[in-house]
Amino acid sequence: MRRAAGHQHRFDARFAAYFDSLTDAAGGALEMPPHGRFPSRALELVRELSLRGGKRLRVALLHEAAALVTDEVVPGLDEAAISVELLQTHGLIHDDIIDDTPRRRGGPSTYYAYRDEFPDRPATALALAVLAGDLAAFLSVRVLLTGDLPPARALAMAAVHADAGATTVTGQILDLERDFHPAPDAELLHTVTEYKSTRYSVLAPLRLGLLAAGADLAPYDGELRAYAGALGIANQIHDDWLDLFGDPAALGKTPGSDVRSGRRSYALAALLASADETERKVLEGALGDPDCDDDTLRRIRRIARTHGIDRTLRTEADRYARRAADRAATWHGRWRTQAVEFFEHLPAWSVTRDR
Amino acid sequence: MRRAAGHQHRFDARFAAYFDSLTDAAGGALEMPPHGRFPSRALELVRELSLRGGKRLRVALLHEAAALVTDEVVPGLDEAAISVELLQTHGLIHDDIIDDTPRRRGGPSTYYAYRDEFPDRPATALALAVLAGDLAAFLSVRVLLTGDLPPARALAMAAVHADAGATTVTGQILDLERDFHPAPDAELLHTVTEYKSTRYSVLAPLRLGLLAAGADLAPYDGELRAYAGALGIANQIHDDWLDLFGDPAALGKTPGSDVRSGRRSYALAALLASADETERKVLEGALGDPDCDDDTLRRIRRIARTHGIDRTLRTEADRYARRAADRAATWHGRWRTQAVEFFEHLPAWSVTRDR
Repeated sequence: MRRAAGHQHRFDARFAAYFDSLTDAAGGALEMPPHGRFPSRALELVRELSLRGGKRLRVALLHEAAALVTDEVVPGLDEAAISVELLQTHGLIHDDIIDDTPRRRGGPSTYYAYRDEFPDRPATALALAVLAGDLAAFLSVRVLLTGDLPPARALAMAAVHADAGATTVTGQILDLERDFHPAPDAELLHTVTEYKSTRYSVLAPLRLGLLAAGADLAPYDGELRAYAGALGIANQIHDDWLDLFGDPAALGKTPGSDVRSGRRSYALAALLASADETERKVLEGALGDPDCDDDTLRRIRRIARTHGIDRTLRTEADRYARRAADRAATWHGRWRTQAVEFFEHLPAWSVTRDR
Repeated sequence: MRRAAGHQHRFDARFAAYFDSLTDAAGGALEMPPHGRFPSRALELVRELSLRGGKRLRVALLHEAAALVTDEVVPGLDEAAISVELLQTHGLIHDDIIDDTPRRRGGPSTYYAYRDEFPDRPATALALAVLAGDLAAFLSVRVLLTGDLPPARALAMAAVHADAGATTVTGQILDLERDFHPAPDAELLHTVTEYKSTRYSVLAPLRLGLLAAGADLAPYDGELRAYAGALGIANQIHDDWLDLFGDPAALGKTPGSDVRSGRRSYALAALLASADETERKVLEGALGDPDCDDDTLRRIRRIARTHGIDRTLRTEADRYARRAADRAATWHGRWRTQAVEFFEHLPAWSVTRDR
């Protein structure tokens, strides 16, 4: 995945320059109120969280999707990358309110940054975090509309983005409903993954990359969905595995967050389905308890290992990763070799990262 | 304002049809998760609040702005109208979380609808309300991008919309900062009004209407801003007046909400600036107290009347309304008479509505 690291490095500099441009006097600047410190502080927090982004997998997907059809420089890819990463920032800020998450990407979540700044005014902190998330959402659309792309192309890309945004919200809503199920089945978990994560994190970058490169999406839509769907599930199973079994140092966030927020992740759904009565009691006592301590977490981890949940999850993640890779393997001949190889290798990398 | 009522009536039917189309099997439908009830419930609440909309002033502004340059049917106006009203829905849903507002437009706020559905899970209610607001935001962009307009025109309109969205959020953030000021001055209040309300409620509809009709905005930008700025201030002073002195039946929401949320409105800033020590104590005890009772509210109203705040506000609102009307009067000759007259009459109507 050296190619992905290259995209990441170049993008991080470009993303910082974008935030600079928002407050420059030059064109593209966002008109901000001439008074007050709160608006610029919100923008600063959006910037900080955005620039603390990790591997920028979405950015790599975008660039490699364009590279499927051309090896020339493709205008609009940078804007599309900024757009999907801002959409991610938006989602994280609101998610961290919803899950009451203190840490994110190795720093404070936006919500907790505000709670720290307004220790005696929790309602103000909440309000500012909601609004900072909204700001990121509008910026993520705006950056696609103010570039120099041919209008029809920019418009198609913005439509993909708005659809991804709306779809993702419905997935986040379904995610909340999932946690009302005592033990959700695989079908529901896959649907949540598809709508909450895959659509904006995998499918939208693929579509945007191809659109920016001038490709017509219609003939490939089923193909892209199949690849994205399998990769998305593999990715999510791996994420859920990491949240229960992963190494805190590699994660950049508190592990056990799924237990503490009561999230019926792939790991916890599997555990709930196989636990005996005594174990279930431990689990149900911990699920959704924000103060669940590390001892209890260790105990849950042990129970999970006893039932082989760690291995089952790894097998499942590998199976979906292979399914995605097999799909990409059929792209040779139609699309450019180097990029196709990226999409073939990505799934296996994606289910071993941070281990 | 019979013309405005005509726009409202026609629009309300069109808006309902739009929501139908989101869940139709036909093109334009939003892909929703095939499982679960929560996502469709969120869409339903967005729909309900949207369709409870009042006078649709933004819609009238849009249509009349187009009518400044043409009397032909202008494609894209309906989509633009739906877009600005969905942006409004988004703002209301998040505002009602921020201000903890139970009632909105004669029904429950989205936040309180969810609190009612999940009486034992306040965090879930909050989360769903945040997400319902997000859904409205993405839908508001999406509807501009999926119509049949010439791409360059649709793109310019979407850019106006995204700018209005981002700007409005910075205004809402500044609004929160305002309430940290003991008694904010007029300049700060005007800036909040400009960014929080005028940009999306007046300026964006004017720009979108002219763009849809094929006009070039650049030559008129200063003109539009001046009109919108004055009308926006007149409107806001009148709103703030209504919130303290208005008739609950005509309002469709609980009056005194500015007092209870501690909002330094035009009315309360004026009151704080002129109250004596005893009165100030009453005020400061009530400001930001969600349980402030009707007796206290009546007392505050009386204090305000003693200082002539009701008359001062009316005079100020009239002054800004006249300033806007005078500006519109200069548009004769350049633009079509009937629409210009609408813009001339609107300010006076806007500062007398609901009295």
